[in-house]
Amino acid sequence: MVKSLTDLDGVFGAGFHAGIKRKGLDLGYLYIPNCCASAGVFTRNRFSASSVTYTQKLVKRHVLKALIVNAGNANAVTGKEGAQHTRRMGMALAKTLGIPATEVAVASTGIIGVRLPVEKIEEGMFVIAENPNRKDGESLAEAIMTTDLYVKHAVHTAKIGKYEIVVAGIAKGSGMIAPNMATMLSFFVTNARLSSEELQLAFSEAVDDTFNMMSVDTDTSTNDMALCFATGQHAVHRHSKEEWTAFVNLVREACQDLTVQIARDGEGAQKVLEVRVAKAARRADARAVALSIVNSPLVKTAVHGADPNWGRVVMAIGKTPGVKLNPEKVDVYFGPHLIVQAGEPVAFDREAVVRYLSQPLVGIDVNLNLGASSATAWGCDLTKGYIDINTKYN
Amino acid sequence: MVKSLTDLDGVFGAGFHAGIKRKGLDLGYLYIPNCCASAGVFTRNRFSASSVTYTQKLVKRHVLKALIVNAGNANAVTGKEGAQHTRRMGMALAKTLGIPATEVAVASTGIIGVRLPVEKIEEGMFVIAENPNRKDGESLAEAIMTTDLYVKHAVHTAKIGKYEIVVAGIAKGSGMIAPNMATMLSFFVTNARLSSEELQLAFSEAVDDTFNMMSVDTDTSTNDMALCFATGQHAVHRHSKEEWTAFVNLVREACQDLTVQIARDGEGAQKVLEVRVAKAARRADARAVALSIVNSPLVKTAVHGADPNWGRVVMAIGKTPGVKLNPEKVDVYFGPHLIVQAGEPVAFDREAVVRYLSQPLVGIDVNLNLGASSATAWGCDLTKGYIDINTKYN
Repeated sequence: MVKSLTDLDGVFGAGFHAGIKRKGLDLGYLYIPNCCASAGVFTRNRFSASSVTYTQKLVKRHVLKALIVNAGNANAVTGKEGAQHTRRMGMALAKTLGIPATEVAVASTGIIGVRLPVEKIEEGMFVIAENPNRKDGESLAEAIMTTDLYVKHAVHTAKIGKYEIVVAGIAKGSGMIAPNMATMLSFFVTNARLSSEELQLAFSEAVDDTFNMMSVDTDTSTNDMALCFATGQHAVHRHSKEEWTAFVNLVREACQDLTVQIARDGEGAQKVLEVRVAKAARRADARAVALSIVNSPLVKTAVHGADPNWGRVVMAIGKTPGVKLNPEKVDVYFGPHLIVQAGEPVAFDREAVVRYLSQPLVGIDVNLNLGASSATAWGCDLTKGYIDINTKYN
Repeated sequence: MVKSLTDLDGVFGAGFHAGIKRKGLDLGYLYIPNCCASAGVFTRNRFSASSVTYTQKLVKRHVLKALIVNAGNANAVTGKEGAQHTRRMGMALAKTLGIPATEVAVASTGIIGVRLPVEKIEEGMFVIAENPNRKDGESLAEAIMTTDLYVKHAVHTAKIGKYEIVVAGIAKGSGMIAPNMATMLSFFVTNARLSSEELQLAFSEAVDDTFNMMSVDTDTSTNDMALCFATGQHAVHRHSKEEWTAFVNLVREACQDLTVQIARDGEGAQKVLEVRVAKAARRADARAVALSIVNSPLVKTAVHGADPNWGRVVMAIGKTPGVKLNPEKVDVYFGPHLIVQAGEPVAFDREAVVRYLSQPLVGIDVNLNLGASSATAWGCDLTKGYIDINTKYN
């Protein structure tokens, strides 16, 4: 049974302690010698780390077969020396595995604006060289953690055509932490056979519906990166609508699984908030309204306090710029409870709603009743824990 | 000496307790019998309260001469009955003052989705009828408060042409409070003589640079409203560039004064954050970057903790969508302290910066070094007080 991405045939990887952090695992690698396709999605922050621009370039031109990743130092806003260090990271693993450096993705997460101790990473290669065929996805998932409270795995399978297709991934949270920010990283492997173009298509669509619809605090890291590799074991046919849809759905499921895990592990979070917006005139409207609600500090604090404060939800819908909206058509539900109908409040069982809002997963449903588009966004409640983590009291 | 807006000649007003709130002042009026011009700026929230749509329509067509305002109930998301109640408020004051209802602005702030006890407001008219010529701006400023911790006045004067021109205003904060949201309201009077079109021009420009660049938590109330009335005492000439610029600057000064007071009174706020973005390619870019920084929860918590976490400022600049930006040109200052130069961190005196960040007014300066446009945004730090106020713990 596949429990981690290295349980797939032909997928190797592990995590180590290289000394970038004082303690704990901080260096990991992934190696898929027969990788047939690779795809990536990257942060839109303009101050992107050198690892982001480096790997983004590579994945456009080459089938990547390996990944080197470190935690404890983001190697971001580190200038030309930082870019050099990114290249040295990639070259170090390439040399160790005996493959071209153009086939090695590089990712970093941790403190910003501090020189990366790249020598420690280079020294770490000796351990990998001893046995590059480790299959220890658990330690790899641990090695990418920063302020995450727990390791995040997702394994999803579906019968597509004749074969059991697997998508397995790991992630680290979107926690942003003093003294500097952290990052969302996520790495997937599938046993499907398809082209890099096809994999990119499926992966972009899945990420757009999941990671890109998740927000802990509206802040966007300089280092966010999600990669997907394919081992090429079983063909998935793009020209078969049934196979293709099943594959995209499978990738989306895996991404959504990690999205919810990251939201749950948001800094100080006690609850996951899932906002579903339906019957919008356009998909962009549904997405914008869902994100506006999930990002509203007033909605987030109300959810934290299990307060059926529908006025804040209505406010967050109404403030979304540029969307098609008729206030007199809007319905709002807290879970199964109808609260606002056609833009006006309806009587509801307050105790039952408070009970519903006290659960660890809170759903808010909004129907705009203008069209056929929908979207879901994920976030978390806003708590004193968030303030504690992000305020560096001396 | 003018201390409050009712100290101007021909300006009357006061606040009372009408019983909308359990205690404290909750009903106010303003009356300028010889008002020569009026102007208004309103919330962009699509779920706007009926008082907003009502007053917005009036101010486009008429010179408004009076205002009736209540606190304790926003009369928002209250359907057709709510719209009726707004009209009844306006008519009640009109009848009391013997002027047409089309000359009376109506504003409300307080709880959302609850029926307005309009009868209490109508009963309150008897007190106003006894003496409509009260000059008690202090009680009026108090009557518009909800969760504000203190009353907010601003009086600014300038010699324009031959005369001393005064702009005097009051405001209530952008505090948003359980069980529902509150609002920003602001009302100004000037002794200038000009047309409503001219006053609207000056007021819109001033509000755009001040109230519209202030954010406590990114959430936008359904009831926000800013109005300006002119008594017509001294002419200000639009065709004189010197007079006009001086007048717009005077209005802007008054608006900025109240903007900073509102930010200082932000829920749980302990510090005001002032972000100045300079040398942007376009004004829209400068505004977007300034607001992105001032709204970033990670920047707000760093300011709260007096943590010189420049990585978060850089992140907030970089995440701003659609702006012209060259990361390698960006300079960042905490107050007088240069922290990032040409996109790379420079050595700084950490202790001195922590001391600077520990002050009640924290300035962050960003130079994009791409053009000649600039903008300033105001906000506040994010504290446990905010969570306390907005989470309704049972």
